[in-house]
Amino acid sequence: MIVNTKKATFDKPIYLESGRVLRQYELVYETYGTINKDRSNIVLITHALSGSHHVAGLYEGDRKPGWWDDLVGDDKYIDTKKYFCICINNIGSCYGSTSPLHIDPSTSKRYGLKFPVLTISDIVQTQKSLLKSLNINKLHAVVGGSLGGMQALCYAIEYPLFAKHIFALATTAYTRPWAIAFNKISMEAIRQDKEFKNGEYDPKDIQENGLNGLAIGRIAGHISYLSPYSMKNKFGNNYVDKDGLYELFGRYEVERYLEYNGYNFPLYFDPLSYLYIIKTMNIFNSARGGDSLSQAFDKIKAKLHLISFSGDMLFLPYEMEQIRDIMINLGKKEQITYREIQSDYGHDAFLVEVEKYGKYLKEIIDEQNRF
Amino acid sequence: MIVNTKKATFDKPIYLESGRVLRQYELVYETYGTINKDRSNIVLITHALSGSHHVAGLYEGDRKPGWWDDLVGDDKYIDTKKYFCICINNIGSCYGSTSPLHIDPSTSKRYGLKFPVLTISDIVQTQKSLLKSLNINKLHAVVGGSLGGMQALCYAIEYPLFAKHIFALATTAYTRPWAIAFNKISMEAIRQDKEFKNGEYDPKDIQENGLNGLAIGRIAGHISYLSPYSMKNKFGNNYVDKDGLYELFGRYEVERYLEYNGYNFPLYFDPLSYLYIIKTMNIFNSARGGDSLSQAFDKIKAKLHLISFSGDMLFLPYEMEQIRDIMINLGKKEQITYREIQSDYGHDAFLVEVEKYGKYLKEIIDEQNRF
Repeated sequence: MIVNTKKATFDKPIYLESGRVLRQYELVYETYGTINKDRSNIVLITHALSGSHHVAGLYEGDRKPGWWDDLVGDDKYIDTKKYFCICINNIGSCYGSTSPLHIDPSTSKRYGLKFPVLTISDIVQTQKSLLKSLNINKLHAVVGGSLGGMQALCYAIEYPLFAKHIFALATTAYTRPWAIAFNKISMEAIRQDKEFKNGEYDPKDIQENGLNGLAIGRIAGHISYLSPYSMKNKFGNNYVDKDGLYELFGRYEVERYLEYNGYNFPLYFDPLSYLYIIKTMNIFNSARGGDSLSQAFDKIKAKLHLISFSGDMLFLPYEMEQIRDIMINLGKKEQITYREIQSDYGHDAFLVEVEKYGKYLKEIIDEQNRF
Repeated sequence: MIVNTKKATFDKPIYLESGRVLRQYELVYETYGTINKDRSNIVLITHALSGSHHVAGLYEGDRKPGWWDDLVGDDKYIDTKKYFCICINNIGSCYGSTSPLHIDPSTSKRYGLKFPVLTISDIVQTQKSLLKSLNINKLHAVVGGSLGGMQALCYAIEYPLFAKHIFALATTAYTRPWAIAFNKISMEAIRQDKEFKNGEYDPKDIQENGLNGLAIGRIAGHISYLSPYSMKNKFGNNYVDKDGLYELFGRYEVERYLEYNGYNFPLYFDPLSYLYIIKTMNIFNSARGGDSLSQAFDKIKAKLHLISFSGDMLFLPYEMEQIRDIMINLGKKEQITYREIQSDYGHDAFLVEVEKYGKYLKEIIDEQNRF
């Protein structure tokens, strides 16, 4: 499946949760499949922290498919022969949508740290504008994991009649201090890196030379995406260099993995985007704007499908169980499904263990289920 | 209980596991209580990563007692009216014993990164020299948690007849990639900090101005010492500033805690010491020098008492259960006790939840138990 990225520009101001206004913005996105006659087959995929709109398929000449290609595509669990799928690069992210690296029209300079703080609600609001511009006024489903799952919950609560099914994977109703603490490592490491220049760096420098602060933040991120068990299975206590001399002091495979993924990350991901996105995660709270989580979840009209992963060390299964319990206590038992997938793979399981939940998700989204 | 620090100097070379030699070294230590007539009441306390020899009591004019003062002291669980307790500052640490900040007699310059890599066995070997110089040839018990627990296990395996009881709390038989990964954050953050100057910094500068890299490493450390549950209980999602304007974007209490403890740490702990100590943790493996863990634990003659903590996110309870199971499989059921303490406090529980295991430990060490 060869795919292309599209772009849309919006000149109508958007009022952000912070009280600030973005006077114009751009969004890039991808679509797969075709909208059917009654426009009842539209599925929105929402992406996670370092994800992009490139969910599935290949770009011309490229070898690496989109990040959820195991789940989404022709004849896959979310079958693009049947569904029209769309994924929008989140505003604030560095894959083409308006971000801190863009020019502020009011100053003709890069926004940098003057870019407004965004929330998950703001991200969803801009997505809604794009969908409206495409004459999409209802969705069959929203499907997202992690930060994408927060967006999915936001649709359920803030736009109750917009989507029929909401799938939220490996996420939470509000971000706990444990996840905030991991993000704190990134924030401090980026902020303290002199090459970050308080956000005034030249992006080309970073794309060429990296940024140690972001690399260190990404190392912390990777720890939270894995788990004690997944690391043990993946790396054991093996040394990179098998030479006997290294037996005592060598570099472990887990260290090489973290170094490689950490130091490569800034070559393709922007540190300001990273800061703004982890801030949206930190301040995500489904209850904001109301009195309680219960009040928030009481607004939901869609069917809400929660999938947690037993080894998830970032958003623990009990956080998803809390949502289920709130829904049941609200008398919305018919509107909720919950499944905990057994996996040692940590938070990343929602990306790499598609085989373990794909069929289950397919039965629900195809409405061929008992749930 | 007013206590004093003592110092001992050793001019006899020590042969390290790396093959390198330390021609001379100093160790500082503290003792509490009095050795009895038959010298059968001596308890060695071993300290953790950032701990020191100051286990209990107060220094003259000081207000803050030693780090295990809840456990050790007159009429406490380890009763210093009954036992003579000694704790030695680990070689490599920055509280007075020989460390990378000391002068290398062969060059008359600071060791810096030329200090030899140390192992837990090396630390224990130097402790043994000190004990010997004090005419201590047997111990009633060794008691240690975390890195101190690794030392306790090392005594059990490498000096089987030296101690009657070994207490290892919140530790592991060998360090797993999960813990190594947390240490990786510290290593990279320190190494990349320009003010670290590849180990050639002036310690006074750091004691006055801090070191961001070590601060960031300490933030990562604190995450591993707590747990999702302890953080939730301790901090909730409260903001530091209760002003309504901060509701959306403010600093969380968990962030303040990590900042405060992170940035203060380099004012009293040395980054080179930190690097050398986490290296000893990373490469700790009870099986080294033999074929297997089973072979290592088969050497044990002491009674081995393991205490794990249910919420420990650094050394998980299953790691301690593994040791118990190995001992049982070796037919050493009579030599092993194991208890998992229910605690949401994470790894730090061994320090802060003394009330939960103190009585249990006391019964064993006083040999008034059924175990």
